[in-house]
Amino acid sequence: MTKSIQFNISAHDSSSLARVGQLDLPHGSVQTPIFMPVGTYGTVKAMTPRDLEEAHAQIILGNTFHLWLRPGLEVVKKHGGLHRFMAWDKPILTDSGGFQVFSLGALRKISEEGVTFASPINGDKLFMSPEVSMEIQAVLNSDIAMQFDECTPYESHGKATTEKTAQQSLELSLRWGERSIQRFRELETGNGLFGIVQGGMFENLRELSLAGVSEQGFDGIAIGGLSVGEPKPEFERILNFTAPKLPAHLPHYLMGVGTPEDLILAVSLGIDMFDCVMPTRNARNGWLFTRFGDLKLRNSGYKDDDRPLDPSCACYTCKHFTRSYLNHLQKANEILGSQLNTIHNLSYYLQLMTEVREAISQARFQAYREEFHRNRQRGVEPGQD
Amino acid sequence: MTKSIQFNISAHDSSSLARVGQLDLPHGSVQTPIFMPVGTYGTVKAMTPRDLEEAHAQIILGNTFHLWLRPGLEVVKKHGGLHRFMAWDKPILTDSGGFQVFSLGALRKISEEGVTFASPINGDKLFMSPEVSMEIQAVLNSDIAMQFDECTPYESHGKATTEKTAQQSLELSLRWGERSIQRFRELETGNGLFGIVQGGMFENLRELSLAGVSEQGFDGIAIGGLSVGEPKPEFERILNFTAPKLPAHLPHYLMGVGTPEDLILAVSLGIDMFDCVMPTRNARNGWLFTRFGDLKLRNSGYKDDDRPLDPSCACYTCKHFTRSYLNHLQKANEILGSQLNTIHNLSYYLQLMTEVREAISQARFQAYREEFHRNRQRGVEPGQD
Ligand SMILES: [Zn+2]
Ligand SMILES: [Zn+2]
Repeated sequence: MTKSIQFNISAHDSSSLARVGQLDLPHGSVQTPIFMPVGTYGTVKAMTPRDLEEAHAQIILGNTFHLWLRPGLEVVKKHGGLHRFMAWDKPILTDSGGFQVFSLGALRKISEEGVTFASPINGDKLFMSPEVSMEIQAVLNSDIAMQFDECTPYESHGKATTEKTAQQSLELSLRWGERSIQRFRELETGNGLFGIVQGGMFENLRELSLAGVSEQGFDGIAIGGLSVGEPKPEFERILNFTAPKLPAHLPHYLMGVGTPEDLILAVSLGIDMFDCVMPTRNARNGWLFTRFGDLKLRNSGYKDDDRPLDPSCACYTCKHFTRSYLNHLQKANEILGSQLNTIHNLSYYLQLMTEVREAISQARFQAYREEFHRNRQRGVEPGQD
Repeated sequence: MTKSIQFNISAHDSSSLARVGQLDLPHGSVQTPIFMPVGTYGTVKAMTPRDLEEAHAQIILGNTFHLWLRPGLEVVKKHGGLHRFMAWDKPILTDSGGFQVFSLGALRKISEEGVTFASPINGDKLFMSPEVSMEIQAVLNSDIAMQFDECTPYESHGKATTEKTAQQSLELSLRWGERSIQRFRELETGNGLFGIVQGGMFENLRELSLAGVSEQGFDGIAIGGLSVGEPKPEFERILNFTAPKLPAHLPHYLMGVGTPEDLILAVSLGIDMFDCVMPTRNARNGWLFTRFGDLKLRNSGYKDDDRPLDPSCACYTCKHFTRSYLNHLQKANEILGSQLNTIHNLSYYLQLMTEVREAISQARFQAYREEFHRNRQRGVEPGQD
């Protein structure tokens, strides 16, 4: 769609759909598969931009809805965009804001034109539409904007979304996708725009959505509407069905996913990009992801465990601090605990992506996957307890 | 008292009692005058050890009372002391724990032997004495331990402390100082021990305390019982009276002080060492100290102010971020705001000490003081508001 976005695949795995690629964006190149740390309010929580670079973050995600409300567009505009505002000079992807608007529930009203809602910050009446979303993302000047869509929920008021509702929803998203593209073209930002496949838990609807989105000429394509509360087998069924059908030449982005195991599965199905709050949010709660399984810091077995979180990890946290110290910081609710835990979790997720790229490039992804699962199941040896 | 602690004065100011010195400690040398960031629970809040080094911290303070309760001595002992536990390999000074024990109010009972109290963490009945304090500080293995003393309060239940009470208190502190020294010698830690001058707001009692403490053979001498709620003129009166009388060859430490202006005044009276929670605590509340005055980040005038906090500051925060961004982080209550604000405030305090040392060494301290006050009174130009 735009010349400023290029995606080149350099290696395919022979045992799966996994591939290695490079995504060239206005603020730099991204090696895929890649995980994007989430920076909701213009900050990946508890991380300085330097911490992010040291964790090998190549691209981060910003939330259009949150930044629109706080600090507001005038402030970001004065900085020439989100990059200078948050002092991050590498690529940024922004979501469309749709997901957050729809999450407002009773506070919002949907029409063909867009969504009217009350600001959760100050109650102001606001309006979001495909055009408004593109205009906000143009001010944020993210390297990749996302189309405005309706994220079909898994259930509403305890009832699973029906096929009819899911179809109406995806058709609205297709129309909004077309309007997103038109407005985005007019804005001439030099950035890229990704479309989103919806269709809920219905394979025929996923196919219908994919057919429509594929024709619209986006620079990349995302799978939305997963990891929205559905049971794991449903998640895997729809991912297994949809991912292999994505246009092979475009970058594939699985939105809002997931655990290390989810990432490895999705990579094998050809997914190139991920975002999720899990590594950052769980870090603040003392839940650490490591090569050898997950580790819950409050477990009293770590109280005098003077080993690093993960001896195979080269992050600042693992190089300098013991599990015992991190257990202490967590129990004392110290800010430094959030910092050090987040540094580790993001380093782990990004190291995992690095290893995946190397394994695919070196034609040993299948063996890597087996080793990954063996290691993750081994456990972290929490001492007593 | 011990050979492991050396203090050498390299320059005196001709217009005041200010001096520049070097304090050689087991974990390294400290250039004085110096400010010591406070690391209560084994962390200077929101700062990694690397952040501290980059802010030019040379020595930090640890709180004996807090660390004794959490994580407890067994955990620190397993790490061989506080340095490895918190991954800080430069000097550490620990307080005696007395101040916190006395702050427990109704929960504690004082006798000649020591203080019995209930743990604020779990209600356990605990006992603290000069001997116990020395033993805990030996496990922490701080480069400088402080004698166990009673910090005479400015007032109790709204009534100013009487001269009689203040005298009884300082005499108890002298006896506890003697017991501190005896136990400290037996422990043979290779570290140093400082005595503390008390005496409340009474000049004759300050003199009495000083005479006693000076004879006890400490490696350094501190002024305690200031910045405990007294009015500023009282603070200045006692500081002006006491500081010039401290033994010239020992390092002089003013406990729990203070604002940048307090530090400059105290340096001119011969003080070499400071600690205070103000730069770190205020940072978390969005109160920033700069060369050109204080800056309260929540002021809406900073909402779109795209200048650095302090253009004359070389810290990570001032080099990369705008006041506007910091105002946003503060309003959004983001952890990164605490991190960046603390980096700046400590960098400012430590830069101030560096400039003070240079000015004294270059025989221009009086001119530096005048410039300091002019700059601080200039204000930070908060745009509108
Ligand atoms: Zn690590
Ligand atoms: Zn600064």
